[in-house]
Amino acid sequence: MSDNTGWRASVLTLFPEMFPGPLGISLSGEALRRGDWTLDAYDIRNHGLGRHRSVDDTPAGGGPGMVLRADVLAAAIDAVCDASDSRPRLLMSPRGRPLTQARARALADGEGVVIVCGRFEGVDERVIGGRTLEEVSIGDYILSGGEIAAMVTLDACVRLLPGVMGHDESGTEESFETGLLEYPHYTRPREWEGRAIPDILLSGNHAAIARWRQEESLRLTRERRPDLLDRQRK
Amino acid sequence: MSDNTGWRASVLTLFPEMFPGPLGISLSGEALRRGDWTLDAYDIRNHGLGRHRSVDDTPAGGGPGMVLRADVLAAAIDAVCDASDSRPRLLMSPRGRPLTQARARALADGEGVVIVCGRFEGVDERVIGGRTLEEVSIGDYILSGGEIAAMVTLDACVRLLPGVMGHDESGTEESFETGLLEYPHYTRPREWEGRAIPDILLSGNHAAIARWRQEESLRLTRERRPDLLDRQRK
Repeated sequence: MSDNTGWRASVLTLFPEMFPGPLGISLSGEALRRGDWTLDAYDIRNHGLGRHRSVDDTPAGGGPGMVLRADVLAAAIDAVCDASDSRPRLLMSPRGRPLTQARARALADGEGVVIVCGRFEGVDERVIGGRTLEEVSIGDYILSGGEIAAMVTLDACVRLLPGVMGHDESGTEESFETGLLEYPHYTRPREWEGRAIPDILLSGNHAAIARWRQEESLRLTRERRPDLLDRQRK
Repeated sequence: MSDNTGWRASVLTLFPEMFPGPLGISLSGEALRRGDWTLDAYDIRNHGLGRHRSVDDTPAGGGPGMVLRADVLAAAIDAVCDASDSRPRLLMSPRGRPLTQARARALADGEGVVIVCGRFEGVDERVIGGRTLEEVSIGDYILSGGEIAAMVTLDACVRLLPGVMGHDESGTEESFETGLLEYPHYTRPREWEGRAIPDILLSGNHAAIARWRQEESLRLTRERRPDLLDRQRK
């Protein structure tokens, strides 16, 4: 980024050793080393209670699993974000608003993000209101914790930061940026196992190629994700 | 698992060093060490061409980015799966069918999974048909590659394998297993920053607590994800 601070990500987790993990490799890892963004993984257990640094307790009203305590998590959040910190605070949770490409772009356009990773059965509801956490879901399935979901969110944002993708990879023609699924890709060899590259892609007729790709995108979206077309109509 | 082979995951990637990464820690990591599942990360570049082990080429018809070659990827798949290997073969791709909790459960109930991680602009369309890859998407956003998406898929599956979750964490009351978002959780302390645990949860009236939780699940789903209710009606 052109300013001198860069995009700042702070992750609150019970497993700080998971970070940067895959984010330290390839595109986001190179961006990390270049200083395009920074990543701090903060251990919630720093604020655990008692000799065992306990962070959770049984759910009020009974039921399976353990619940992350409001007081412990709030203390960790307060240690990471002071009053002047205006970054959005996300709580990765299957109950949250689904992450979208538009949201990733909005986050990437900001100054960074604070991400709280849930574990156990859930987190005490009161800390969500008490520390204005916004629940965000990466999809309709359950993970063992929020850490890999945080990595998804960060990877989606970091590749959109200025300078992270090369000139060749504009990122603008990709799935969801246009509201449609991406058209099929082909490369050499021209024929493989009896399957040929469609003639039109070898025609050199750029207008016809653009039209074909648009039609294929529309066809794939209609076949696989009619919900995306419905959403556009609204 | 009770059988002697366990659930087998094979991941094809250009970044095998990303694995097991977060999957080697916590719940899925403990399951890996116990032998409840196995994870092989196979380097697609083993089948790269020429002195530079090249795996990609420019897109036919022009455009940004690079496309993973069909011949290279097919050779890598053939090295990992022989004809007798009946595991589903997923290609992580934003064009794919969205991953759901039901799909994760179906995968966990099988013998394992082969996951191909895309990179660059995409993979040559012909290998998708030629090696019966099923495109699966973890959500409506773009990542820098399929690796973190593969981790999401594997984490969602592994926690459902027999013996991986403790007795206390049945996993059956959670979001999406019931088709509803999960109800709010609370734990000690009884009051925190002026916010109290709802009285009903401290009442000891199990029937009333169950009813309250069901109503809260329904309320949250209606507010945040009416699409989940629409889907159930269909």
